[in-house]
Amino acid sequence: MTRSPLLRALAGEALDTPPIWLMRQAGRYLPEYRAIRAKAGGFVDLCLSPELAAEVTLQPIRRYGFDAAILFSDILMVPWGLGRSLRFDEGRGPILEPIVERSEIPVFDPDSFHAALAPVYETVSRVRAGLGPETALIGFAGAPWTVASYMVEGGSSRDFATLKLWAYRDPEGFGVLMDTLVDATVGYLDRQIQAGAQVVKLFDSWAGAAPEVLFERGVVRPTAAIVQRLAALHPTIPVIGFARGAGAQTRAYGSATGVTALALDSGIPLAMACALQAERPVQGNLDPMALVAGGDALAMEVDRILEALAGGPFIFNLGHGIVPQTPPEHVAALVARVRG
Amino acid sequence: MTRSPLLRALAGEALDTPPIWLMRQAGRYLPEYRAIRAKAGGFVDLCLSPELAAEVTLQPIRRYGFDAAILFSDILMVPWGLGRSLRFDEGRGPILEPIVERSEIPVFDPDSFHAALAPVYETVSRVRAGLGPETALIGFAGAPWTVASYMVEGGSSRDFATLKLWAYRDPEGFGVLMDTLVDATVGYLDRQIQAGAQVVKLFDSWAGAAPEVLFERGVVRPTAAIVQRLAALHPTIPVIGFARGAGAQTRAYGSATGVTALALDSGIPLAMACALQAERPVQGNLDPMALVAGGDALAMEVDRILEALAGGPFIFNLGHGIVPQTPPEHVAALVARVRG
Repeated sequence: MTRSPLLRALAGEALDTPPIWLMRQAGRYLPEYRAIRAKAGGFVDLCLSPELAAEVTLQPIRRYGFDAAILFSDILMVPWGLGRSLRFDEGRGPILEPIVERSEIPVFDPDSFHAALAPVYETVSRVRAGLGPETALIGFAGAPWTVASYMVEGGSSRDFATLKLWAYRDPEGFGVLMDTLVDATVGYLDRQIQAGAQVVKLFDSWAGAAPEVLFERGVVRPTAAIVQRLAALHPTIPVIGFARGAGAQTRAYGSATGVTALALDSGIPLAMACALQAERPVQGNLDPMALVAGGDALAMEVDRILEALAGGPFIFNLGHGIVPQTPPEHVAALVARVRG
Repeated sequence: MTRSPLLRALAGEALDTPPIWLMRQAGRYLPEYRAIRAKAGGFVDLCLSPELAAEVTLQPIRRYGFDAAILFSDILMVPWGLGRSLRFDEGRGPILEPIVERSEIPVFDPDSFHAALAPVYETVSRVRAGLGPETALIGFAGAPWTVASYMVEGGSSRDFATLKLWAYRDPEGFGVLMDTLVDATVGYLDRQIQAGAQVVKLFDSWAGAAPEVLFERGVVRPTAAIVQRLAALHPTIPVIGFARGAGAQTRAYGSATGVTALALDSGIPLAMACALQAERPVQGNLDPMALVAGGDALAMEVDRILEALAGGPFIFNLGHGIVPQTPPEHVAALVARVRG
């Protein structure tokens, strides 16, 4: 049986050529994405259109032959499935009706949740049907801490004041919110796996904003619960954990949550990445701005990363999502360099 | 000779009661600060009024008896002294005319620079004259990477795209910018020390945005140069380095720059803080939101930090600046708890 390079790396294998995919590889830097986006209506509509979402998921695979496709969706589809309002305003990011007290925490009702998110599961099926066996399909969800930050702050935040104050002042209510998101996330990823996702990734984009005690209560514990419950349902499905900005807490995050592999942001130095790789596969961590820069700076950074990490179980990726101003030809140059 | 508790801790002494001061302790959470601010005109005017700047510097010392006063000023006074335009707009933060090419990098002319910043040095003298010997006076500057980010981006940034692209595409020009800021910063801190500052602190607020190679070129090297040149001028003056968000790179930052002490943000777990403390004094790292929360959460966090760090050379502080919504009585409770 042939397994895709991504699954082999996640199983602990060091490949001669590491698999490569990029966060936000389906995105605004691609003209073919912008063409679909323009005719899709709102961003949420695009996420809920299986035909269009599958198409944009597949676009970068066709163009670059990445080793993995990742479901085109958004981490805020979980609050949306829980019945919270959600819209995306140009230049302002997501806007949700904020939860201001414990009584407003939504109840996870599997029937209505899965009915609302059925188009996402259909997207997964369509994408899987459109991929060859060599290309892995990654499902994903936002991790509870990060998703909660948007639900409580009502959108993006610079200081996470409302979320943190809630966690400090009402630990029990904060725990209810985390438990609800754990339940919903497990259900959501379970259905993605049933629909054809072969790997799942948990995006904790704002893990770096959590000081130690809240990192334990908001990042580590809920993530560990999700990993454990998914493992009971799907023992062979790898989980990639991305605690962005976790810095010095990254190693503890890996061992305490039991994620299969660690996605590393660009702030993790390569010596530390090597040490982490001794314990589990790692993924990362090219600075997205080095990809925008291109040329010598890009080549030097790619080589430095490969030299440090390609001897062990490794997946080449960025340290954060690709940015809209990235020239598509720089992505082609990156793929060519990684594949030698 | 009696030395202030802050200077004793910085000299490596473990005190029974650790010294305490708070970043942004002179600030909008204090009604007496808001009263001065309202009559000062613009924010830059306040920084350049020795009488008013000295008054707001001293206000929190009078109210709480902190172990250190820190010059009231702004990290962008260095670009201002270099002749760059600067204003602060309510809600938008600082606005500078951005430097878009290498030819626009200002030349450091000591005469005009020190003439422009003479009011800052006079503020330092006035504050020192207003303090008892038990209270240390801290001077400060922004570190080159952080100051450059504002100069190049024209203000606050979320992704530091312009700065990073410059550093990747034109390493030599980026080096000229760093060298200029090193020269200006050494001159600026030298004059603050001559005026009465007994400690200086380098604020690298955006160190966490620098991936490994730029952390080396933008954070470590310029900081090491400043530390080395200041040590030649003022061998007994301690330097506190604050590489906010540096996470896993914090230890390397300490050893490669030679700063006397490390200020730690709230993302550094206490076990790591202890390990760092074995090499040099540490300062930190209460989450400012725990101070806003107050009550049990505040007490628990304070006790946890004291238990971990008070046995070695330690300065109690926040992990980031105090926020405007902080109740002043929570600050009093914090000081009382630290002083037991």
